[in-house]
Amino acid sequence: MMKKNRFRFSGKPVDYYFNTPFARLSEIVDKAKTVLITDEHVFKAHQRLFKGWDTIVLKPGEAFKVQRTVDEVIDQLITLGADRLTQLVGVGGGVVTDITGYVAGIYMRGIPVGFVPTSLLAMVDASIGGKNGIDVGLYKNMVGLIRQPSFLLFDPALLKTLPLAEWQNGFAEIIKHACIKDAAMFKHLQQYKIRDFQKDPSLLAALIERNVRIKTRVVVQDEFEQGDRKLLNFGHTLGHAIENMYALSHGQAISIGMVYAAKISEQIIGYKDSAKLESLLQQYGLPTSWAFDARAAFQVLQKDKKKAGKNMQYILLEKTGKGIVYPIPLAQLETIFNQF
Amino acid sequence: MMKKNRFRFSGKPVDYYFNTPFARLSEIVDKAKTVLITDEHVFKAHQRLFKGWDTIVLKPGEAFKVQRTVDEVIDQLITLGADRLTQLVGVGGGVVTDITGYVAGIYMRGIPVGFVPTSLLAMVDASIGGKNGIDVGLYKNMVGLIRQPSFLLFDPALLKTLPLAEWQNGFAEIIKHACIKDAAMFKHLQQYKIRDFQKDPSLLAALIERNVRIKTRVVVQDEFEQGDRKLLNFGHTLGHAIENMYALSHGQAISIGMVYAAKISEQIIGYKDSAKLESLLQQYGLPTSWAFDARAAFQVLQKDKKKAGKNMQYILLEKTGKGIVYPIPLAQLETIFNQF
Repeated sequence: MMKKNRFRFSGKPVDYYFNTPFARLSEIVDKAKTVLITDEHVFKAHQRLFKGWDTIVLKPGEAFKVQRTVDEVIDQLITLGADRLTQLVGVGGGVVTDITGYVAGIYMRGIPVGFVPTSLLAMVDASIGGKNGIDVGLYKNMVGLIRQPSFLLFDPALLKTLPLAEWQNGFAEIIKHACIKDAAMFKHLQQYKIRDFQKDPSLLAALIERNVRIKTRVVVQDEFEQGDRKLLNFGHTLGHAIENMYALSHGQAISIGMVYAAKISEQIIGYKDSAKLESLLQQYGLPTSWAFDARAAFQVLQKDKKKAGKNMQYILLEKTGKGIVYPIPLAQLETIFNQF
Repeated sequence: MMKKNRFRFSGKPVDYYFNTPFARLSEIVDKAKTVLITDEHVFKAHQRLFKGWDTIVLKPGEAFKVQRTVDEVIDQLITLGADRLTQLVGVGGGVVTDITGYVAGIYMRGIPVGFVPTSLLAMVDASIGGKNGIDVGLYKNMVGLIRQPSFLLFDPALLKTLPLAEWQNGFAEIIKHACIKDAAMFKHLQQYKIRDFQKDPSLLAALIERNVRIKTRVVVQDEFEQGDRKLLNFGHTLGHAIENMYALSHGQAISIGMVYAAKISEQIIGYKDSAKLESLLQQYGLPTSWAFDARAAFQVLQKDKKKAGKNMQYILLEKTGKGIVYPIPLAQLETIFNQF
């Protein structure tokens, strides 16, 4: 082999503030050198929180998670005179934190960014682990970065105005964490409904912290998704494919995706608890089946980022609480899909 | 202060292949899973090297270092079916390695990338250290990343077809390295002309490796430009401002930038060797003065990424071989500029 010289570069720490009121954000960042980025929904619901902060307000929804929005935010930052000492803080759901994280990652080759997730889904999943990005055509998150924020502030009180459908989205990811990593939490969840968490702030705060820690542990062990981090894609392979095709919410789509992944797990590696998973998902208001067009879904799925050569890196369950990465040849996967 | 939890994430190693023929690229990457990115000039000059490789050929020049080109490359990668196992290799000068590094950094949240720099400037500077990016309007590299490639292959034989102006561009950065970090190399350079390095492959290979090591040492110590890495901007603050304004080459612009930075160093911190620097630059065919519009240059310069609040982080010389970061208030800098 040729002579090579190897040099090593470095990463950065991330600070997590659990169960912390939004108002304390000014103790974490310098108000004068910070630009908040949010969307119209969050801005309306929490207007008083934004007083005195430079704020860029985006149009809401996944449809705006595209390059054009990134271009517009960059133009606004240039106009605001944002420089390398400017910090961005994304205040919102996953779309806002994704765009904010991405813009912060590329503006002037990277300026500091923090997140204040305002949806349950963003708190337990989207804001954690540094994945960000935008969609390209039908392909979700086709462009983006893995880059850690400098901090995360979790304020469960922000969830008071959250619509039910958004609670369900969050619980889809929480149930996912239980499936791949935490059988005890699966049992814990079986004892409650969404309403119980809405009524009991400490039960809710504890659940958020538990899920943040699960996701963080997985990501810290495997930041660049060479192994264990792939487990977090449980339910997402099919989920992402049908989410756009049928205008499902993310939680609905991955709920269905998890049920099918559990069924494939039964077929291929003898998983036994599909029925328990289906009933838990239903308990949290999530759908467990969908009459999707298998052929069309398979087409979209082939462009998935989880494709590696001729195999799809599918996430299956060995048992509840133990997900595994399982390479399935595309041809075999097509056959399985056509059975559904 | 609030309770915070701190988690640490990780970086990656980079392999350097010094003085290695391009043909050995196939020992480093899997030809079937690699896409080369180059430009029309390089493709024409080295056509046989690209045989059998999937290649995307860009329009040449800084004018195409913009978001539109990025969009087009991404579309082509999707069409080629590039996935996470695909590796990009940028074969070209700084514009090609910048775009290739940037696209690799954001496509599917980052796929592997390597560089084969084909210009002296790219070999000793642009391809090293993981900085990449695109221009936004008048602002150079306004958007981009700091992300290390997985490897760099240096083949000095590729320089055989390089135009003289490109040799001069490279030597501008080499002289910069000498000014900020290596007084011995400054003396070494005083003994030669470009022609000597063109005629003597081992003299050239040694010079390239010496400069690659200088830049790498600075970057490894300070990947995210909190301190020492800023020194590499010597000559670049004014240089970048006038480069676009007067359609100067990068080497010409920073040569002029270095002369003015040396003069400011004389005024503010008593540097003594401006005259020696001017004559070394001239020895390598580089310009040392320019009748630029100081007011207009100052306007552009205020948007520079090196601005931090009300100060410009200017790079000055304490002595030859020792650059320092010196914050100059914008108001003072404006006065100095208006003297020129």
